[in-house]
Amino acid sequence: MLFPLIVSAFMSTVAYIITVRLIPKLRDMFIKANLFGIDMSKTTSEKVPESLGVVTGCTFLITMFLFIPVPFGSSLFDDESFPHDEFVELIAALLSICCMLLLGFADDVLDLRWRHKLLLPTIASLPLLMVYYVNYNSTVIIVPKPLREIFGFSVKVGIFYYIYMGMLAVFCTNAINILAGINGLEVGQSVIIAMSIAIFNVVELSGSLWKAHQFSLYFMLPYIGTTLALLKHNWYPSRVFVGDTFCYFSGMTFAVVGILGHFSKTTLLFFIPQVFNFLYSFPQLIHLIPCPRHRLPKFNSKIDKLEISTTKFRYADLNVVGKFTINLFRVFRLIQWHEKEDYVITNNLTLINLVLLYLGPLHEAKLTLVLLGIQVVCSLLAFVIRYPLAWIFYDV
Amino acid sequence: MLFPLIVSAFMSTVAYIITVRLIPKLRDMFIKANLFGIDMSKTTSEKVPESLGVVTGCTFLITMFLFIPVPFGSSLFDDESFPHDEFVELIAALLSICCMLLLGFADDVLDLRWRHKLLLPTIASLPLLMVYYVNYNSTVIIVPKPLREIFGFSVKVGIFYYIYMGMLAVFCTNAINILAGINGLEVGQSVIIAMSIAIFNVVELSGSLWKAHQFSLYFMLPYIGTTLALLKHNWYPSRVFVGDTFCYFSGMTFAVVGILGHFSKTTLLFFIPQVFNFLYSFPQLIHLIPCPRHRLPKFNSKIDKLEISTTKFRYADLNVVGKFTINLFRVFRLIQWHEKEDYVITNNLTLINLVLLYLGPLHEAKLTLVLLGIQVVCSLLAFVIRYPLAWIFYDV
Repeated sequence: MLFPLIVSAFMSTVAYIITVRLIPKLRDMFIKANLFGIDMSKTTSEKVPESLGVVTGCTFLITMFLFIPVPFGSSLFDDESFPHDEFVELIAALLSICCMLLLGFADDVLDLRWRHKLLLPTIASLPLLMVYYVNYNSTVIIVPKPLREIFGFSVKVGIFYYIYMGMLAVFCTNAINILAGINGLEVGQSVIIAMSIAIFNVVELSGSLWKAHQFSLYFMLPYIGTTLALLKHNWYPSRVFVGDTFCYFSGMTFAVVGILGHFSKTTLLFFIPQVFNFLYSFPQLIHLIPCPRHRLPKFNSKIDKLEISTTKFRYADLNVVGKFTINLFRVFRLIQWHEKEDYVITNNLTLINLVLLYLGPLHEAKLTLVLLGIQVVCSLLAFVIRYPLAWIFYDV
Repeated sequence: MLFPLIVSAFMSTVAYIITVRLIPKLRDMFIKANLFGIDMSKTTSEKVPESLGVVTGCTFLITMFLFIPVPFGSSLFDDESFPHDEFVELIAALLSICCMLLLGFADDVLDLRWRHKLLLPTIASLPLLMVYYVNYNSTVIIVPKPLREIFGFSVKVGIFYYIYMGMLAVFCTNAINILAGINGLEVGQSVIIAMSIAIFNVVELSGSLWKAHQFSLYFMLPYIGTTLALLKHNWYPSRVFVGDTFCYFSGMTFAVVGILGHFSKTTLLFFIPQVFNFLYSFPQLIHLIPCPRHRLPKFNSKIDKLEISTTKFRYADLNVVGKFTINLFRVFRLIQWHEKEDYVITNNLTLINLVLLYLGPLHEAKLTLVLLGIQVVCSLLAFVIRYPLAWIFYDV
């Protein structure tokens, strides 16, 4: 059981070393290909190469390709007992990740539309769902204790379970993508999520479902290795940006291990800040409340700190749902509220702005650290929910 | 046996219709992303979008993803007998193709170096070789009759067979890439190769290895559908270019069906013009003979025809192998030979220039037709070699 994990850890370390050296060498190639951005929160207007997530994605895939034979060890030389069902899980998981990486990179290069951002992860998760169907097709969910009087012990949800898994892929890819915009945040949160999943897997290795958690670790270790290399170059002040490529690639990797490892609910628990940010952003995403093109915090070059960015609108222009939402947020003190003549000015509805609202202007590196701190605290909370609290709702 | 093929043919037709409409809509997106070229053989200098192969590659993949459940039909609802080994072949084949598409597109965008062009297909073929190992690991080759006295009836070549298969992927991807440069040629030759493979598969459907040929058709039909759509827009005068993406994607698809369908030698037979072009080009590719940056034929705008392009060098500057090669080509009348003062001027060593050398200046569309005609004739020749001649070397 431990041997393939030791090999995986070793290969992941090598992948880290290679990736960390490779990234600076490829910077110019990306800039020459017109893949670059200007950091809006800096005084210089230097070109920063964009979409470097494709590099870590590729080193991740190559590591995985070379790793493929390892878990099958002795059964490789024994014709009878080869576990084709496990093998196909590994290959299909890689297909979904590879496909997402391709689509993510295409999005970065070609600047696809919003509807594609929802469609692409759905497509990329098809092989995964197919494998799930073939290998398990278990769509029975255990009903939480308080609801058992109504629904019974378990419910077979059928097709809805597949829709849920498809939506999980869409959610994971986009949730990371919208909690972004300051140096190191996308990569930092992804590393924390990956480490949380890995810790959870290690704990569960001693349980009866150890195979599924070992499978998940095969992905998480090289993911952590290659992503830490990216974090090193993406940390404040960023010398590279990661692009949608990275967010798509990461989200899909988490969805893959969650689905095939049968712990998709626990995976979602590690997304608490992303879920909060998504719900908080939702009124702006669907334009209930006006949404400017960028919602990044505003850089104040005089004090070298980031401040909240705002949106300005007439209260009377909102529809009834918009009015209700904004009042709800106001009551719970989740927004800044300024009235100026006919207009209302509030912060843009992102977790980043909310942190700045409570803590005041912050230096970019410190803001990232605060947000990553929140991510860590939420992961601890997730473990509390998963372990001590779970007995309230389920028999453990 | 026929039902999945009928579904595949239907889906491929739909894929054709969607792709043919999609391509013109995406033109501007590619130009905006700085992915465009200027057609050197036209009088206008309009921007032509480049790398559209990524679009057909994606529509091909999506078609295949949706097709995945079809071949498994009734065994999907029957837990016991699911053929995991066939399923994993399909998934691994798609992984190799998807990975090659990603790397090809990355090459087009980032302009990778020559050594990567050899490395990338090797990496992308790893999952394929792994599946071959797991499902067959048959590295026994039947020795042709005249050599059996030396080697016996069959030889187990072991690791060399895997090296051969890896090199097949490298060859297929690059061979199409270097027989290119005039409107419609890359796509046209690929369609002819794909159709030749498909015809071969249909003939073999009645044989004992019908399953492998049915498997190959699952790939060839949607490939032909999506690629015909690309050909329509890439035909003279090209409104889109296809990019390395397309050549990589196509080459890998052919290698995949050749390897997993166990007819890699026959696949190579359909590459006769590419093999010739590769061998003919080889002295320039390894710089035995000076190789200018572009070896495309020269556009003569006065007569609206293409003429041979040339390379100029001092005979005395060539090393001994170079001298030998150039004399060999001269003896066999495979090159134009002009001496001017100290210099020798010969045509660049490509099949395209060779055709122009024999037929004189040609209009671009006509030149493409001639080259595609050669491809068709070579495919017919391949069938002659494969069927009537094979008995000389093997028992059929």
